[in-house]
Amino acid sequence: MEIRFPASIEWQGGVPGHLRLLDQTRLPHEEVYLECRTVSSLEKAVRELSVRGAPAIGVAAGYGAVLAAQEALDRPGPAFLQEVRALLDRLGRARPTAVNLTWALERARRVLEEKAAAPPREIAAALLEEARGIHREDRAVCRAMGEAGAALLPRKARVLTHCNTGFLATGGEGTALAVVYRAAAAGKEIRVFADETRPLWQGARLTAWELQRAGIPVTLLCDGAAGSLLASGGVDAVLVGADRIARNGDFANKIGTYPLAVLANRHGVPFYVVAPLSTFDPSLPGGKEIPVEQRSPAEILTPRGIQVAPEDVDAWNPAFDVTPAELVTAVVTEKGVLSSPCEEGIAALLGDGAGKRGEN
Amino acid sequence: MEIRFPASIEWQGGVPGHLRLLDQTRLPHEEVYLECRTVSSLEKAVRELSVRGAPAIGVAAGYGAVLAAQEALDRPGPAFLQEVRALLDRLGRARPTAVNLTWALERARRVLEEKAAAPPREIAAALLEEARGIHREDRAVCRAMGEAGAALLPRKARVLTHCNTGFLATGGEGTALAVVYRAAAAGKEIRVFADETRPLWQGARLTAWELQRAGIPVTLLCDGAAGSLLASGGVDAVLVGADRIARNGDFANKIGTYPLAVLANRHGVPFYVVAPLSTFDPSLPGGKEIPVEQRSPAEILTPRGIQVAPEDVDAWNPAFDVTPAELVTAVVTEKGVLSSPCEEGIAALLGDGAGKRGEN
Repeated sequence: MEIRFPASIEWQGGVPGHLRLLDQTRLPHEEVYLECRTVSSLEKAVRELSVRGAPAIGVAAGYGAVLAAQEALDRPGPAFLQEVRALLDRLGRARPTAVNLTWALERARRVLEEKAAAPPREIAAALLEEARGIHREDRAVCRAMGEAGAALLPRKARVLTHCNTGFLATGGEGTALAVVYRAAAAGKEIRVFADETRPLWQGARLTAWELQRAGIPVTLLCDGAAGSLLASGGVDAVLVGADRIARNGDFANKIGTYPLAVLANRHGVPFYVVAPLSTFDPSLPGGKEIPVEQRSPAEILTPRGIQVAPEDVDAWNPAFDVTPAELVTAVVTEKGVLSSPCEEGIAALLGDGAGKRGEN
Repeated sequence: MEIRFPASIEWQGGVPGHLRLLDQTRLPHEEVYLECRTVSSLEKAVRELSVRGAPAIGVAAGYGAVLAAQEALDRPGPAFLQEVRALLDRLGRARPTAVNLTWALERARRVLEEKAAAPPREIAAALLEEARGIHREDRAVCRAMGEAGAALLPRKARVLTHCNTGFLATGGEGTALAVVYRAAAAGKEIRVFADETRPLWQGARLTAWELQRAGIPVTLLCDGAAGSLLASGGVDAVLVGADRIARNGDFANKIGTYPLAVLANRHGVPFYVVAPLSTFDPSLPGGKEIPVEQRSPAEILTPRGIQVAPEDVDAWNPAFDVTPAELVTAVVTEKGVLSSPCEEGIAALLGDGAGKRGEN
């Protein structure tokens, strides 16, 4: 089967041009595209989660540097550089915890400084080339993970997944969902069970929408129902993404991932983590060292603005949980599959000192 | 500490009188009481889940028989009996799957037939006595389970629970939450972590409200977050109710219970099921035989009227899951605690041929 993906992040035109973004906050109700022509409009889109998923934010930020250059084009040389630097700094503050944002802007800054003596229009063109490069690399990484993971699935596979790990979260086909897309494209019969993923419903709002659009059969379930689904023998593989992977293979991912790993293990269902090398954090020996972000109780108490709990009740809302490596069957990366135990494989792959990127 | 419970089900007056019900559909936003003066108003309250929880429905139905008699009081003898029988039949159809409704109405019918020759007013008074008896028995059973379970908790206990199993679900203090209430009343320091319990949010809407009202510290969490809470060592005991318990101790309860049992087991946290003897179904040898109700996908796709998923996406929405007896530390009943393995203990207790009642 041939799968066509909507261009959720797309640069339109050259220099000048603009960035077209699928507004994820309006999904699944409306498919609305934002046209960002200024850094401030992109900053707003990042801040308000119109574009989310760390790789996707990184790709968008790459193009954001072109917007910055365009805004400053009519200034003379030194004022141009000063203005672009200020705009990049501002964009970098849109989501302080998204490592990919920092990483992509760092690449843009390097181009800017290397080309500092060139005419502004030429610098803008170089920034666009760099942005296209970041986007192209992300697409290639997604495709490679997808191919490597697809080979692990049987010809007919029922896959359970969590959160959103598809084309909405990256500049390409995704991480865990790229495996689904590549398997389907290779003619395998894939059915996806998607956890709704409370508190923010990325599974219901985004994953179901993506898969439906791609023509892959998808069934939603509550997070608490995954246990009986796995117990029933209805799942051939669990596929999840990762936010950060420690040196020993322990990994952090969207809250609710750890119970899936424990249940998959109990029922003998393979549990695969699909993540680019940039997700590995060689500075952390194990999962205990991964910091877990606590988010607002409001996400639990008043989801989508609806008050489902007493007003002043306490809530515990960690964004991620940590799964020990022992529960992971294999980690799928763009450089191939690391089977468990994967500590040595990780060490070998990380020889090149990969940076840090997450995806949530 | 002294805990005072709001009278969520209360008969006011004698004959004539009326049934006052706390409207659970309005919780936690508003504490509104319904006054049912006719069978049709009670029927509506049951149908629309203003009163829910099988024991609570049973208690309400007992009083419903008094409403039926009051409505027919001015008819001559045979017409009176005929009218009351017709009204009881009608009430019995309000929720065809709630076994307690049938069971309570059966008790009322027996009184009606035994007293058939008495004056209508005397029959109505006998029905009120029977209804008060059902209510009193339910209170006593809840209290006994609560006392038995409270003895299992340490002096300072952090308890994880699921769904709603308190005074809103029964005619007394509850099942699993009765344990919390009795432990707190005995001076133990209890903190409750309550799963929000998707798809219907009984944990967020009802359990958090009950506990807050009773002055017990409560913290809500998403169902998927219970795994990291248990892994963190933050829980001393898991307490859940049950909908149906098979002869071997396997039991059905609200969807999401089974993952808690698996996780509690992994982390060495005691997992207690609190249920009256009427929840045991001696006709079923094991959990595989327990039928699991499938509910509407709308509960997942459009919770509280908010569309969180694409419109025509498929959803899998089992109301219950089944937990194998091997994961249960003990079952707490009104006749004491059955430690695992509890098959023999169950057989001994069921000598009296207990009926069936659930609680969801």
